[in-house]
Amino acid sequence: MDVCRVVGQAVSTAKDEGLHGTKLLLVRAAGPDGAANGPAFAATDTVGAGEGELVLVARGSAARTTGRTGAVPTDAAIVAILDSLTIDGKVTYHKE
Amino acid sequence: MDVCRVVGQAVSTAKDEGLHGTKLLLVRAAGPDGAANGPAFAATDTVGAGEGELVLVARGSAARTTGRTGAVPTDAAIVAILDSLTIDGKVTYHKE
Amino acid sequence: MDVCRVVGQAVSTAKDEGLHGTKLLLVRAAGPDGAANGPAFAATDTVGAGEGELVLVARGSAARTTGRTGAVPTDAAIVAILDSLTIDGKVTYHKE
Amino acid sequence: MDVCRVVGQAVSTAKDEGLHGTKLLLVRAAGPDGAANGPAFAATDTVGAGEGELVLVARGSAARTTGRTGAVPTDAAIVAILDSLTIDGKVTYHKE
Amino acid sequence: MDVCRVVGQAVSTAKDEGLHGTKLLLVRAAGPDGAANGPAFAATDTVGAGEGELVLVARGSAARTTGRTGAVPTDAAIVAILDSLTIDGKVTYHKE
Repeated sequence: MDVCRVVGQAVSTAKDEGLHGTKLLLVRAAGPDGAANGPAFAATDTVGAGEGELVLVARGSAARTTGRTGAVPTDAAIVAILDSLTIDGKVTYHKE
Repeated sequence: MDVCRVVGQAVSTAKDEGLHGTKLLLVRAAGPDGAANGPAFAATDTVGAGEGELVLVARGSAARTTGRTGAVPTDAAIVAILDSLTIDGKVTYHKE
Repeated sequence: MDVCRVVGQAVSTAKDEGLHGTKLLLVRAAGPDGAANGPAFAATDTVGAGEGELVLVARGSAARTTGRTGAVPTDAAIVAILDSLTIDGKVTYHKE
Repeated sequence: MDVCRVVGQAVSTAKDEGLHGTKLLLVRAAGPDGAANGPAFAATDTVGAGEGELVLVARGSAARTTGRTGAVPTDAAIVAILDSLTIDGKVTYHKE
Repeated sequence: MDVCRVVGQAVSTAKDEGLHGTKLLLVRAAGPDGAANGPAFAATDTVGAGEGELVLVARGSAARTTGRTGAVPTDAAIVAILDSLTIDGKVTYHKE
């Protein structure tokens, strides 16, 4: 799963029926310190993530194996809100 | 899902039977302002998208979990036409 | 699906039984004008494509959802021979 | 499978129910000598890997075909702890 | 499928039960002349490939649709040993 920062939201009226009622968040890949460093893409949300939070995004068919996204035509789903990241014994990110 | 701009169309007579009756649109990945910045590739359309529109494209097996694309041998499907994109509280794209 | 140019062929005697009787074509990703610009990789063929033709290649599990490739261990299948590509209202490629 | 180095851990309280009880390790792609050279991402663990160990990570749907990860919404799973790597007849990595 | 050169082997004692009895070969992507040009990664073998041979590697879920790899948590499988590659009517590689 990729460490990503939730940076915004996509709004769509004309969408596949499987996406109705699904929030489409915009996320960007982030480094271990939580700073966004990749291009924005859309992910469905299964854990109630909010803007600014650091999350894990499952890509590909994994996005459709969550409790909520079985019938949703998604290739990216937020599956966890991160509390902290530790690398080489050092906390590189901690949620405020 | 990737934010993409619909830029054109691919026409094919000799194609897999699963693609018969399916429109093949050409799309390019786009930034948050809607400007295309990636190479063109073909996507099937499940929401009636038209040229020039900003859309979300589901890649991989997700492209075959839409209402219309179950039996289609596609690895990319347009699943939403975008109304707007908001990043860091700022509207970066709004459909005219 | 990726726009690709068929550039050659791979020959193999010792191969998985699922590939027996399957032609292995070499293709390269191509731009909207049909010029090859990517590295060569092998794709199975479901539509009778020939060398020099511009085609659409379905990647990943989509390669195994065609009429002919169900039991073939392939991650890339030619699913359409292109007649033309149109971008921004301009024909960028037309089969001769 | 990618050769990766286990470099740390991700902690999350609010996560998809399929991830409850699953350790989320941070890994980085590594070269044949075991030196990490890629960005960090999260992987589920099925073999009891520990920090600092060199492992193989299965990506995509393969991550959900292990003995332990069937119902977990993961796109990356550690499936082996490496004892050694040999390239061109030369041992390039050996676990201490 | 990617044209790859078998360059070595990975040895692991602690691995997912689905990998027991499976040889883990190290491969690198190769050009049409057979010269390796990509980073090393691990692939399961279904055709008895040996070090130095040029092979086709199926990535993703295709790696688990071979005769031998159904229950193996692999995302890369060697599915063919190459006899020759021909590009633009010219033999670029021929097995000795």
